[in-house]
Amino acid sequence: MRLASVASSPVRDLLALIDRPEVISFAGGLPAPELFDVDGWRAAFDTVLSGPQARRHLQYAPTEGDPRLRGQVAARMTARGLPSQAGDVLVTTGSQQALTLVAAALLEPGATVVVEEPTYLAALQCFAMAGARIVTVASDEQGVDPDALEQVFRRERPDLVYLVPTFANPTGRTLPAARRARVAGLAEQYGVWTVEDDPYGELRYRGDVLAPVAAYADRVVHLGSLSKIGAPGLRLGWMRTPAALRAALVIAKQAADLHTSTIDQAAAAQYLSVADLDGHVAGLRVAYRERRDTMLQLLPRVLPAGSSWTDPDGGMFVWVRLPGDVDTAELLAEALRHDVAFVPGAPFFAGRPDRATLRLSFSTSTPEQITEGMRRLGAAVLAAGNRTREGRRATVEFGRLAASHPRQHLI
Amino acid sequence: MRLASVASSPVRDLLALIDRPEVISFAGGLPAPELFDVDGWRAAFDTVLSGPQARRHLQYAPTEGDPRLRGQVAARMTARGLPSQAGDVLVTTGSQQALTLVAAALLEPGATVVVEEPTYLAALQCFAMAGARIVTVASDEQGVDPDALEQVFRRERPDLVYLVPTFANPTGRTLPAARRARVAGLAEQYGVWTVEDDPYGELRYRGDVLAPVAAYADRVVHLGSLSKIGAPGLRLGWMRTPAALRAALVIAKQAADLHTSTIDQAAAAQYLSVADLDGHVAGLRVAYRERRDTMLQLLPRVLPAGSSWTDPDGGMFVWVRLPGDVDTAELLAEALRHDVAFVPGAPFFAGRPDRATLRLSFSTSTPEQITEGMRRLGAAVLAAGNRTREGRRATVEFGRLAASHPRQHLI
Repeated sequence: MRLASVASSPVRDLLALIDRPEVISFAGGLPAPELFDVDGWRAAFDTVLSGPQARRHLQYAPTEGDPRLRGQVAARMTARGLPSQAGDVLVTTGSQQALTLVAAALLEPGATVVVEEPTYLAALQCFAMAGARIVTVASDEQGVDPDALEQVFRRERPDLVYLVPTFANPTGRTLPAARRARVAGLAEQYGVWTVEDDPYGELRYRGDVLAPVAAYADRVVHLGSLSKIGAPGLRLGWMRTPAALRAALVIAKQAADLHTSTIDQAAAAQYLSVADLDGHVAGLRVAYRERRDTMLQLLPRVLPAGSSWTDPDGGMFVWVRLPGDVDTAELLAEALRHDVAFVPGAPFFAGRPDRATLRLSFSTSTPEQITEGMRRLGAAVLAAGNRTREGRRATVEFGRLAASHPRQHLI
Repeated sequence: MRLASVASSPVRDLLALIDRPEVISFAGGLPAPELFDVDGWRAAFDTVLSGPQARRHLQYAPTEGDPRLRGQVAARMTARGLPSQAGDVLVTTGSQQALTLVAAALLEPGATVVVEEPTYLAALQCFAMAGARIVTVASDEQGVDPDALEQVFRRERPDLVYLVPTFANPTGRTLPAARRARVAGLAEQYGVWTVEDDPYGELRYRGDVLAPVAAYADRVVHLGSLSKIGAPGLRLGWMRTPAALRAALVIAKQAADLHTSTIDQAAAAQYLSVADLDGHVAGLRVAYRERRDTMLQLLPRVLPAGSSWTDPDGGMFVWVRLPGDVDTAELLAEALRHDVAFVPGAPFFAGRPDRATLRLSFSTSTPEQITEGMRRLGAAVLAAGNRTREGRRATVEFGRLAASHPRQHLI
C-alpha cells in the first residue's frame, strides 16, 4: 500500500459527519432503512437455516459464489438488457470488493487508470492503494465525453477505465445509449478494460431503461449489488466477468476472503426466489422519486443565484455547483452549525478539485426532513455569505471536523 | 497481481479432489458440519432480525466491526491469555482477509516475508500476490527454530514474518512457551512485524493452554476466527491490531469491502451473548480428539515402515513423511482410485518441496470413516508400491486431476 497516497481516508472521515442525531444529513449514500424488507429477510434466513441444507449454509463454500444466486443474478442482468449466464457471475463481498479484485487482477504498480471527473471516491482510494496513476477525463451533463476519452486512450494507453454510467456517484448523471455504444467501441478498439460500476441502475425515476455498457462490448467488467435494492448489511455484490479475466479474478477473490458469506448468499438466493424484489424496487422508486422531487423543487429557493445542479433520472444524488469563490468545505462547517450536512465536492476529484461543488443525497430523508434540511441549508448559505462579507471566514478545517466523528462510511 | 506467480491456485485445485461423494477425504481443512450448532445460529439470526435494531443490522456499518462483537472477541482473547480491548479488534471477513489486509498495509512489491517451512498455502499465495519475496525458515517438531529465525532476521532484514504457532496448518505442530517468548523477543529486537495466525488454538486435545505469541510483544498481529469453533460460512474473523498499524489496516479493510456483513456480525454477537460457546467448543474437542486418536492409532498399520508423522496436541492435521523416493502427488492418484484423499505436501513449501510428505485432516470424518479411509489408504500405498516395482509408475498429474473438479476450497 502506498500509505502516503491514502494517509487519510476521505470515505471514512466524511460520513462521520452525519452521526449526530439532530443533523439532517444529505451526506450519506445509504439506502433508506425504513424501506428495508425486514420481514422478508428474516424469513429468508429462517428458511435456509431450517431446511435440510442448513449445515451446508454454515460451511465453507465455492469462491465463485452460491450457484443458485449466480443464476438469479444472471437472469436479472439478462432481463435488464445484459445477456448473462450463471457462469459469468462472481459473487463479491459488496461491489466495493469487486473494485479491489479488479485492481489486484489487472493493475501492476504504475498502471494507468482513467476515471471520469468527478467520480466515486472509494474507487479512487482503491486504485491509489494498488499503486496506479490516475488520469481524469472530462464529463458533461451526459456523463463522460467519448471524444475526450478517445484522446486519453490515445495519449495514455491506459490499463483500465472506471465509469459509473448510470445515475453516477457523485453527479447523478447518466450516459446516453449512443455514448455507451461509443465508449464500448473505444474499449474494444484500444484494448482497454472497462469497469462499469452499476449499484444504482435499478433506481430509475424517469425515462427508459438503458442497456448497460457491458451489453456493447466484451471488454467490460459489469459490477452490480444488492446494497441499494435489497440491504447493504449483507455485503452482497457481483461482477459479470469477461472470460479472459475470470481465472485471475477468482484467484484474487480467493486470496481476499476465500468466498462471500455462505449464509448471506443462501438467504439472498432464498429471498430472490420467494420475495417480489421487482415489486419492492418499484416501491423504492416511488419513495425515492418523491424525495428527489422535493429536493429539486426546493433547491432554487435555497441556493444563491448563479448556482447550478444536476437533475438525475435516478439514483440517490444531486450534484451542486455554487457561484463565485466558495469553498464548500467551509460551507459545511457552517451547515453543521445549522444541523444539516452534505459532502463537499473536492474529494471526488482525482485532479484539481472544483471546491465550489457539493453532493446532496436525498435517499435517507423523508420529504418532511428534506424540506426542513433545505431550510437549514439555505440559512447556512446565508450565514456563510454574511461571515465572508464580514471578513470572518469559517476557519474550521473539514478534515479536523470529520476526524472527531470517525464512525460511519460514505458510500 | 503477479499473475505469473499465481497462475494456478493450489488452494482451489486441491480441495476439488474431495468432491466425489464416495471419497473418504482427509484432504479438507473444514470443520465437521454435523457438529455445527444450527439451532443456535438460526435463533441468533432470528433474534437480531426481530428486534428493534433489525433495520440497523441490514444497513451499512462501521469498518472496524460491530462494537458488541469487538468487545466479546476482546474478552475471549483476554481469557486466553492475551489481554485485549474492544478497540484493539478489527473484524475481518474471515481470517483469510486479515492476511490480505496485512499485505496491503505492510508490503510493498519486493518486500521480504519470512514463513516457516512448510506453511499454510493460501498465506503463501496472498504474499506472492502482493509481490513479496518469500524466505523460508527451518522448523522442527516444536515449530519454528528461533536460532534459524534470528539468522534469517539478521541476513534478510525482512518486513514480516508469518507463523501458525498453535496446531499449525499443515503440520499440527505447536510452538512451546519458551520459543514463543524468544520469537516475540526477536520480533521486537529486529523490528519485524509478526503475524500470528491462530484459527485452531481453541481446539486443544491435550496439554496446557499456551499464551499467544502476541502476549509477549507488541510487534505481533494476532489473527483469530469463528470458522473452526463456530461456523465458517459466516466468514467472521478478527485481527488484534497493534496501535501503530491500526489506521492503515482500517483503511485497507475499507477499500477491501467497506465492512464485514452487518447481519452476520450481529448474529455472532447475539450468539456469543446467549449460547455457551465454551461448552460447544468442549464438545468439539471431545469429538475431534476421538478422530485424531483413531487416525494416529491406525497410521502405524497403514503406512510403510520408515514413515514418520506428527502427533498434534490439537487442531485438525497430521503431517506424514513417507520413506524413500516417493512423490505423494502420484500416490494421491492411486489413493483416489481407492476412493480416499489427502493433500500432497509439496504445495505447502515455499522453497524446495519435500515430495514425500502429505497432510491428513481428521476433522470431517467419523471414527468409522477414518477406520475405513485408513484401510483404503493402506491399500493405495500397497498398490502404488507394486506399480512402482512393476515399472508402471502412476502418470496422472496431480494438477490435471485437480483441475477436473474445481469446486471447493482447501482451508
